[in-house]
Amino acid sequence: MLDFSEDELEELRGESQRAYDLDRAHVFHSWSAQKQITPMVVSRAAGSYVYDGEARPLLDFSSQLVNTNIGHQHPAVVQAIKDQADVLCTINPAHANDKRSEAARLIAERLPESLNRIFFTNGGADAVEHAVRMARLHTGRRKVLSRYRSYHGGTEQAINITGDPRRFRNDMGDAGTVHFFGPFLYRSEFHATTEAEETERALTHLRRTIELEGPQTIAAVILESIPGTAGIMIPSTEYMQGVRALCDEFGIVYIADEVMAGFGRSGKWFCFEHFDVVPDLVAFAKGVNSGYVPLGGVAISDPIFDTFADVAYPGGLTYSGHPLACAAAVATITAMEDERMVENAAQLGEAVVGPRLREIASRSPIVGEVRGTGMFWAIDLVTDKDTKEPLAPYGGSSPQMNEIIGRIKAGGVLPFANYNRIHVVPPLNVSEAELMEGLAVLERAFTEPV
Amino acid sequence: MLDFSEDELEELRGESQRAYDLDRAHVFHSWSAQKQITPMVVSRAAGSYVYDGEARPLLDFSSQLVNTNIGHQHPAVVQAIKDQADVLCTINPAHANDKRSEAARLIAERLPESLNRIFFTNGGADAVEHAVRMARLHTGRRKVLSRYRSYHGGTEQAINITGDPRRFRNDMGDAGTVHFFGPFLYRSEFHATTEAEETERALTHLRRTIELEGPQTIAAVILESIPGTAGIMIPSTEYMQGVRALCDEFGIVYIADEVMAGFGRSGKWFCFEHFDVVPDLVAFAKGVNSGYVPLGGVAISDPIFDTFADVAYPGGLTYSGHPLACAAAVATITAMEDERMVENAAQLGEAVVGPRLREIASRSPIVGEVRGTGMFWAIDLVTDKDTKEPLAPYGGSSPQMNEIIGRIKAGGVLPFANYNRIHVVPPLNVSEAELMEGLAVLERAFTEPV
Repeated sequence: MLDFSEDELEELRGESQRAYDLDRAHVFHSWSAQKQITPMVVSRAAGSYVYDGEARPLLDFSSQLVNTNIGHQHPAVVQAIKDQADVLCTINPAHANDKRSEAARLIAERLPESLNRIFFTNGGADAVEHAVRMARLHTGRRKVLSRYRSYHGGTEQAINITGDPRRFRNDMGDAGTVHFFGPFLYRSEFHATTEAEETERALTHLRRTIELEGPQTIAAVILESIPGTAGIMIPSTEYMQGVRALCDEFGIVYIADEVMAGFGRSGKWFCFEHFDVVPDLVAFAKGVNSGYVPLGGVAISDPIFDTFADVAYPGGLTYSGHPLACAAAVATITAMEDERMVENAAQLGEAVVGPRLREIASRSPIVGEVRGTGMFWAIDLVTDKDTKEPLAPYGGSSPQMNEIIGRIKAGGVLPFANYNRIHVVPPLNVSEAELMEGLAVLERAFTEPV
Repeated sequence: MLDFSEDELEELRGESQRAYDLDRAHVFHSWSAQKQITPMVVSRAAGSYVYDGEARPLLDFSSQLVNTNIGHQHPAVVQAIKDQADVLCTINPAHANDKRSEAARLIAERLPESLNRIFFTNGGADAVEHAVRMARLHTGRRKVLSRYRSYHGGTEQAINITGDPRRFRNDMGDAGTVHFFGPFLYRSEFHATTEAEETERALTHLRRTIELEGPQTIAAVILESIPGTAGIMIPSTEYMQGVRALCDEFGIVYIADEVMAGFGRSGKWFCFEHFDVVPDLVAFAKGVNSGYVPLGGVAISDPIFDTFADVAYPGGLTYSGHPLACAAAVATITAMEDERMVENAAQLGEAVVGPRLREIASRSPIVGEVRGTGMFWAIDLVTDKDTKEPLAPYGGSSPQMNEIIGRIKAGGVLPFANYNRIHVVPPLNVSEAELMEGLAVLERAFTEPV
């Protein structure tokens, strides 16, 4: 944790007031009604903690937007950014560059052997956009199938693929996207009562959707390997293998969206490894360098690469394979490997977070379900455990949810909240003590009456 | 210029070979047929020079993709990145942050007083995407009008707005975009023989297009203030003011795409200042921090801001207002101001580049026209000055153009080439001596027989 002297504290307070005032005068915020927000100032962070404008520490159970997988200000990654800044910040993507090459190698080496080529983007949204473009040009087909309860990014194509209320006001019905229901036993769309039934019915539903949309019109099925913001609903291995088989049967490209679930979040390097499937394209961002420098990308299978071997790929961007961003990726992947962060996430997820959350659920009248793996957990809050009525409506908030969120922050923990859910998504290298501290705060928040 | 000792040279050679080999094994490049390229390795650069894999210096007359407006590795900006890396690399865009606030202030202060709010993105493409979304939601209309011979970015919506052959394979005809012809006297679509006639006819053409598309269907007109990669065709002040007046008449949002033309490139902070017009939205990227860290954004007029004051803006991204990127912007804008780079670009453009290029044109059989301002110049190459037949076809290349490009590189200059044009787009802080050196290389390339 950071220490602030009285002088530093005084300085931080002045700086924070200025940051807040200028923010309100000049900064336009994502997904917000601009005059109805009062942003918390954060200009300092370290490890598992962020510090507000008064230097108050908050245990970061959000990893911000589930991207700082190595925590804040990891010294080896900070040093690598500084070293690369001294040598070369940026270069035309047409050239070859040492850090870009090295980052591509490290990513490709962690992927199945059929995924060898990396196209770098600036973030997750453009990674999804380019993956979809590659699939369309590879197949000569247009439609993209994705599930309801999903998030795939904020640019026009990506938000139209998204199955989340954030799509609604961007949806003109003409983006070539079709949504289907995925498996989610706790709130089954298929009237299933067992996981096996949910899997079978969800696969039948996907097959019917493909058959009735017309297989020859469908370029790609895109799936978050585990849907993230939409609720961390873990599919069965049989479901994911069934999706892969359907794609093979109908010549459809299978795109894994690993923007949030990838790079260790789920307790494996890539989340699809849990299900023993190999995608044709993998979109990634966030964890690849913990967002220390904006970076995303697409890993490309050899057959799709071949489509663009002798015919130009019609896409690109100025900062593709940005040296500073790639240097941060090289250092991040190396630090994750050296410090066994993925193993830490898997182990503490299974030994600490899961058992503790299940214990909290048993004691709380409002925890309907807890589900997750690694450092990737959702707590589904309900007004009634039998009816499973959500504590806030889908796409909205409620006084009860706001009360819960307030309690968690008052307890010194920064939560990730979405509609009726609180997610537990701390850094992969969080300590057991930090986890226990944060989970105790959650327990109080969920067990006191709302 | 950098000095390399024998040992450093030896090390660089090994490093470059490895970078090249890994690039060919793992890196997928923008806009390319992947097996038909042999990228030059660049892992070192400083000031106006980049260094290839053998440490050979090349005078950077491209500013890479016309983004390194302050040259390579500006020490004050490198230091600012390192300082910010020590404090805070990234934070959730929902929070307020000191560097984000400060960058927004510095940008807003350089814009007309009606443009006060900044929405930060990762680059130019998503800046355009979000500007278009804001215009659509503000007007409740769908269509976007843009000119042929334009470039607006590589994501799905942005590439469909683009008027360039790179759009073709991405164009399904359903993106809600309509293209019109802009003024370009040298290759007039309007059979005009004077600038005044070109302006009048181009405005009439735009009015007709608006009237026949249906004004109530049109959300926005988007224009690069001076089209960049498409050919640096400078519109008249009357044309730009006429566009503004048409937008006002029909309630259409006027979006200025200043991604390439902005931040000093044209010899003014924002290129639209040349024409004394005020846009409703301004998309920017590249020059805002010279691309040292990926960053773009949209400046938003007060009336459009008000549309999202009490109703949420349905768009966002994880790295919006990224602290490291914003710290680089603060330092870049400050360095540009302190070192009078915009004035340098304006002065050397008028006193050196323009006169010297016109002199070269008069001596060369293949220079059809030179045009530009600031550090933003195009050389339009032709097989015949009377027929104006381009030296390479629109959207393609030719042996003659490849020969010219080869000569320029052999002369130690890194050019920016597009179809039948060579652009002269060095850093804004290039020296007169560097300019004269590079222009002499161009002169030889254009005057020896092809």
